[in-house]
Amino acid sequence: MNINEESLKKHEEWKGKLEIKSKAQVNNSHDLAVAYTPGVAQPCIEIHKDRENVYKYTMKGNTVAVVTDGSAVLGLGNIGPEAALPVMEGKCVLFKEFGDVNAIPVCLDTQDTEEIIKTVKIIAPAFGGINLEDISAPRCFEIEERLKKELNIPVFHDDQHGTAIVVLAALINALKLTGKNKENIKLVINGSGSAGIAITKLLKFYGVENIILCDRNGILTKDDKNKNEAQNKIAKEINPENITGDLSEAMKNADVFIGVSGPDAVNTEMVKSMNMKSIIFAMANPMPEIMPDKAKEAGAYIVGTGRSDFPNQINNVLVFPGIFRGAIKARIQITEEIKIRAAKAIASMVDVNQLNPENILPKAFQQGIAERVAREIMR
Amino acid sequence: MNINEESLKKHEEWKGKLEIKSKAQVNNSHDLAVAYTPGVAQPCIEIHKDRENVYKYTMKGNTVAVVTDGSAVLGLGNIGPEAALPVMEGKCVLFKEFGDVNAIPVCLDTQDTEEIIKTVKIIAPAFGGINLEDISAPRCFEIEERLKKELNIPVFHDDQHGTAIVVLAALINALKLTGKNKENIKLVINGSGSAGIAITKLLKFYGVENIILCDRNGILTKDDKNKNEAQNKIAKEINPENITGDLSEAMKNADVFIGVSGPDAVNTEMVKSMNMKSIIFAMANPMPEIMPDKAKEAGAYIVGTGRSDFPNQINNVLVFPGIFRGAIKARIQITEEIKIRAAKAIASMVDVNQLNPENILPKAFQQGIAERVAREIMR
Repeated sequence: MNINEESLKKHEEWKGKLEIKSKAQVNNSHDLAVAYTPGVAQPCIEIHKDRENVYKYTMKGNTVAVVTDGSAVLGLGNIGPEAALPVMEGKCVLFKEFGDVNAIPVCLDTQDTEEIIKTVKIIAPAFGGINLEDISAPRCFEIEERLKKELNIPVFHDDQHGTAIVVLAALINALKLTGKNKENIKLVINGSGSAGIAITKLLKFYGVENIILCDRNGILTKDDKNKNEAQNKIAKEINPENITGDLSEAMKNADVFIGVSGPDAVNTEMVKSMNMKSIIFAMANPMPEIMPDKAKEAGAYIVGTGRSDFPNQINNVLVFPGIFRGAIKARIQITEEIKIRAAKAIASMVDVNQLNPENILPKAFQQGIAERVAREIMR
Repeated sequence: MNINEESLKKHEEWKGKLEIKSKAQVNNSHDLAVAYTPGVAQPCIEIHKDRENVYKYTMKGNTVAVVTDGSAVLGLGNIGPEAALPVMEGKCVLFKEFGDVNAIPVCLDTQDTEEIIKTVKIIAPAFGGINLEDISAPRCFEIEERLKKELNIPVFHDDQHGTAIVVLAALINALKLTGKNKENIKLVINGSGSAGIAITKLLKFYGVENIILCDRNGILTKDDKNKNEAQNKIAKEINPENITGDLSEAMKNADVFIGVSGPDAVNTEMVKSMNMKSIIFAMANPMPEIMPDKAKEAGAYIVGTGRSDFPNQINNVLVFPGIFRGAIKARIQITEEIKIRAAKAIASMVDVNQLNPENILPKAFQQGIAERVAREIMR
């Protein structure tokens, strides 16, 4: 039985990967009076007096809503809220297993930006944080930005920022190994969707000065006007020499390639045209932009992918459990500074003696990552 | 330490009475591939092909949203969505402990009828049922009615129908003991809020012909025009002799009194004016309309209250866990017929040999009630 068959069979057995458990014992009338009426009126009264007490007496302080509209699910695209539910349940499993954060799937039967924003605001009272998931660009940008402003709990679009943070963590360690530094490298990102733009922004904020962003139409330039608002905006802030052309042009003498695009976007010629000690993060899933063996043969020094069956898995499960664990406790929005601190914390989880081109990131199952990230955020 | 102090202390320890648990083990890359990517794409694809499969592969088929706007919480009134959360968590605890149904609190930051309806519809995809809770009248009527029409999952306002069903269960057994029958009794209900109206409707549908509904202004009559829409409507369908006056007038020669009003609404003179073998369900919480010892002294034959420290506790925890357990599996709306079947099932849980004026209902902790109710519904 292959993974797909096994997964389908297990999902049918589970009938939902999540279960709601009671922490309160309810075995007799006394228990009932403590957990429910009449005793439960007391925490209600305390919260009514001071709304801050909701963190003291309820689940809010450790509960995240995993919100999707089902518009950009895995590589499956716009499959709708019901079909997105197995993924959202899975995400909630990871929140619990990796970060000990309670997470609840919220699958929205609308893809209207305003309706999504309004709905999330209306259901926010019971949640300590909002994890936006698999919402397509460019709507995801406005939804996140507005919710960050209009809610007083952390809001985080994992597809954007989780990916950007783990890429930065990988880059920090890869640069250490190559002896290159962020100010002098030429870095190419292929894919101008939500992840590509978020990576671009974060690496720029981190201090990478020469970033070239490409998509299927080639290099984004300062003169671009036909892209979406987010793309037009970011295009003006990068590509300092305003070079033009296709991806192969961009990759000449590049030091780093980051792919959030599709299979086979990169060929060996492109890799060969890069600078010495080149770094390739080919994160298209399940088939990377170039297979690691091919990239290595063509001269790449460090290769990472999104897959667990190759070295250097670049996986945002290293990020979001700890990010939320910290942010809902500290009750802060996740700024660019915090993202960089999270990335550095993740990078630091690889012992200096263990750091090598096949080992630039901690493994997903390494103990203590979420705790480390959360601690860094709460500092 | 009294119950209130103990409850507050326990709530601070729990920091939320609910916990999200994963049914899927995630200890290594293989587990991750089965529960999450890439394997999780398979159930997504199956649901995308046929939306019905959401019941086969996800939590939807055993998960209820406990939805409130915090407008009518316990006896505390309009305390808002955050302060309502301890009660909603408690309700979810009862769903799990008594019915093995997963339930999730949804506290809405709006009290606008249309916004509530819209929000519940938008978040419905992940839920198998909607339990409306502590939403004030008359908004609760329209919200429930519209959601029942516009959603294809069961919608149930427990404050109305849970109460009505358990009252009917109690009445069925009380009538058995008195040898009276539903067609010939005079039955008085005091309190014309959502519970009072729901009880009136269900008992009328069950076949009680002479029902008098009262509120603080006295008996509702067919000429009433100043009440809310639901009250005006029900008033035309009951009180066959169109009697007028106050509660003491209504209770003369009555066989049954049902109180969903407030403390001390009933005095001993009123009880004395009732027919022989009178039945009194004084359900105001925590202080009943008349204390059981006083009612008994004045001649009442059977007395029930909402409290666990007196005989005959009339508590909707006997109802909602089984109702939802059955309705989300059978995927049906909860009609008046089904409510009557549920009430009969609950009444039947008291063994005929055990039935006496101090024991007309099963105890909340008696085993098998939810299973029995669910089985009856799924029939």
